[in-house]
Amino acid sequence: MRTADPLHLRLLRLLRDEGPVSRAELGDRLQMPRPRLLAELDRLVALGLVAEAGLAASRGGRRSTLVELDPRLRFAAVDLGASSIDVEVVNGRLEPVAAYSEVADIRSGPKVILHRVNDLLHKARADGAYETLHAVGIGVPGPVSFRDGVPVSPPIMPGWDRFPVRELLTREHGCPAVVDNDVNIMALGERHGGVAHSVDDFLFVKIGTGIGCGIHLGGEVYRGTDGCAGDIGHIQVDAHGPICSCGNAGCLEAVFSGAALAREATAAARAGTAPALVERLAARSVLTARDVAEGAAEGDVTCIQLIRDGGRQVGRVLAGLVSFTNPSMIVIGGGLAQLGHVLLAEIRSVVYRRSLPLATGNLPVVLSELGARAGVAGAAVLASDIAFGEAS
Amino acid sequence: MRTADPLHLRLLRLLRDEGPVSRAELGDRLQMPRPRLLAELDRLVALGLVAEAGLAASRGGRRSTLVELDPRLRFAAVDLGASSIDVEVVNGRLEPVAAYSEVADIRSGPKVILHRVNDLLHKARADGAYETLHAVGIGVPGPVSFRDGVPVSPPIMPGWDRFPVRELLTREHGCPAVVDNDVNIMALGERHGGVAHSVDDFLFVKIGTGIGCGIHLGGEVYRGTDGCAGDIGHIQVDAHGPICSCGNAGCLEAVFSGAALAREATAAARAGTAPALVERLAARSVLTARDVAEGAAEGDVTCIQLIRDGGRQVGRVLAGLVSFTNPSMIVIGGGLAQLGHVLLAEIRSVVYRRSLPLATGNLPVVLSELGARAGVAGAAVLASDIAFGEAS
Repeated sequence: MRTADPLHLRLLRLLRDEGPVSRAELGDRLQMPRPRLLAELDRLVALGLVAEAGLAASRGGRRSTLVELDPRLRFAAVDLGASSIDVEVVNGRLEPVAAYSEVADIRSGPKVILHRVNDLLHKARADGAYETLHAVGIGVPGPVSFRDGVPVSPPIMPGWDRFPVRELLTREHGCPAVVDNDVNIMALGERHGGVAHSVDDFLFVKIGTGIGCGIHLGGEVYRGTDGCAGDIGHIQVDAHGPICSCGNAGCLEAVFSGAALAREATAAARAGTAPALVERLAARSVLTARDVAEGAAEGDVTCIQLIRDGGRQVGRVLAGLVSFTNPSMIVIGGGLAQLGHVLLAEIRSVVYRRSLPLATGNLPVVLSELGARAGVAGAAVLASDIAFGEAS
Repeated sequence: MRTADPLHLRLLRLLRDEGPVSRAELGDRLQMPRPRLLAELDRLVALGLVAEAGLAASRGGRRSTLVELDPRLRFAAVDLGASSIDVEVVNGRLEPVAAYSEVADIRSGPKVILHRVNDLLHKARADGAYETLHAVGIGVPGPVSFRDGVPVSPPIMPGWDRFPVRELLTREHGCPAVVDNDVNIMALGERHGGVAHSVDDFLFVKIGTGIGCGIHLGGEVYRGTDGCAGDIGHIQVDAHGPICSCGNAGCLEAVFSGAALAREATAAARAGTAPALVERLAARSVLTARDVAEGAAEGDVTCIQLIRDGGRQVGRVLAGLVSFTNPSMIVIGGGLAQLGHVLLAEIRSVVYRRSLPLATGNLPVVLSELGARAGVAGAAVLASDIAFGEAS
């Protein structure tokens, strides 16, 4: 939870989220006397953050000057996955001006991965995407100490524990950097430009290789005491279930995740119970969640059942979290969101049946709008916030 | 989540929590220039909130004047339970100057119950406990719209839905009033004067007739979108468990709560498996959680097993909430906290085994310090906050 916004942060966010605004309207919106506003704008122009953008349409009297974020403003947004690097360079409005995606194994370690991130950003500069970066935001697939800018004991990221990610990026690019957990930045992305637009209290549930939850309370990301809040993949759903990578039995992500679904799909294909999967396994010798989604779309009963069984488990965990958190919205994202409305219908059915009526009366449970872009979108929001917040 | 504290709220809270402080120290602590501090103190003296209290010990130069909360300041703190009314009148330091406890059935409805509360408060005035009340804080055993000051669809409180509790108390006593859920005020009480002193992120779990959770995040009570956050009693722990009062199967409070424990103890006594319970049932024809606690203390194996089974179920739910919330502390309170260390040991064992190591590394799981007084203590904190906050 952040302390009250300083005025310049509110002003810069307003220009970021709404584009050019006249000085007169800015004064009204921020309830700021004209002399103070003009002084603040002069300061932000001198810092290279704000620029004039011509005259506004007349409101009756003299036409007011439009202001906008400086068109040269650039942020880098980085989303590291277990097996991918996504980088975008965005302008002040957070619109991409360059985007790169590469396959990469996070287990190669921080030096290799961050070297590749830096290479992509230098390439973007060579391609004319920016002259100077004003901030870098990066998401990583593991727990993060947000305050220290380092990963903390991340289970699937050997070599990254307490590696100074923020410090390295700050030094390389000469600008502020900010590090967060991948699910937190996806939630931020959905809140800024997706389905959770302006919703203050919501949960973003990522179902992919693993399962995690971004928690937005009171309009801010909630990270917990050690930065690992939202780690719902290891909530037990079946005491007699399969052993999880964490060593416990029957964790949610051992029962339903990309890996678990592929495992169950393969078993169903081998047993011959799912015709759609038998063909696909014969053709490619490996099955993924996408095969199950396609099988379900073709009406394969076993595929539909696999998705519904998984949805029920996710729904049971979410029902508990709805009773606990009483949120305004739940957003389902990550790779397995491609399972679409069969998955969603099952999750909804369990959540609505199992949670307090008062808590579910107006509770939408919806799919992510930004899909694979949620991560970089949120990293861009974080980068701009840090740049604006430090412009004081 | 509240916006930044106005200065006078910080000042009054400091005097409430620490007692008389010299003007010089107040200026230092609040980083307030002397002229502004003196003006603020004059205003608070005129409002009857602050008084002078002699001279402080010398800090080398001239002795500074001590200030304290006005000794005539009084708040009413009310804790309504399913079957009890607890009322305290406290001074500015939140020390009780009068206390009353009565048996009452919350199902008698708001008119009867609030009439009795008002009678107790008028009696306290007749007894000399106060001349004027500066605020009333009240906790009720059900969901509350904190903003509107009314209970909302409270399951065990027929007739209370949307009853204007705050308005009635304000009109009767001519001062601000504030209404909250009983578990939220218990958490506030523990944070102010109990085991969670100054802890910003913690969960207070009440195990009594029902089960609920007070959530403290970032130093504030988190109430959720509809005011029903923390309703963990209806999280499913056993799909094949007993039917709960809410209509679903295997809710936590259907499996372990005062009522559930009494039911299982009676069954064990009738089956003859628990000698300690057989005697007690013969003597009094009804068993309660206290009988199980006493049986366990005498070494009755079945009693110990009943407590451990319940602790395991509570522990499983809390393990999930620890993974989700990553709190700094868990406090166990409510009537069943009398089951003591057998219960606590089982809860701890499951939480530590089932949650992320990162989240449990420094996580104390402890018993409430204030016990049955936690509710009124929290209601007093809430009353003083509302009185101080409105003194602007």
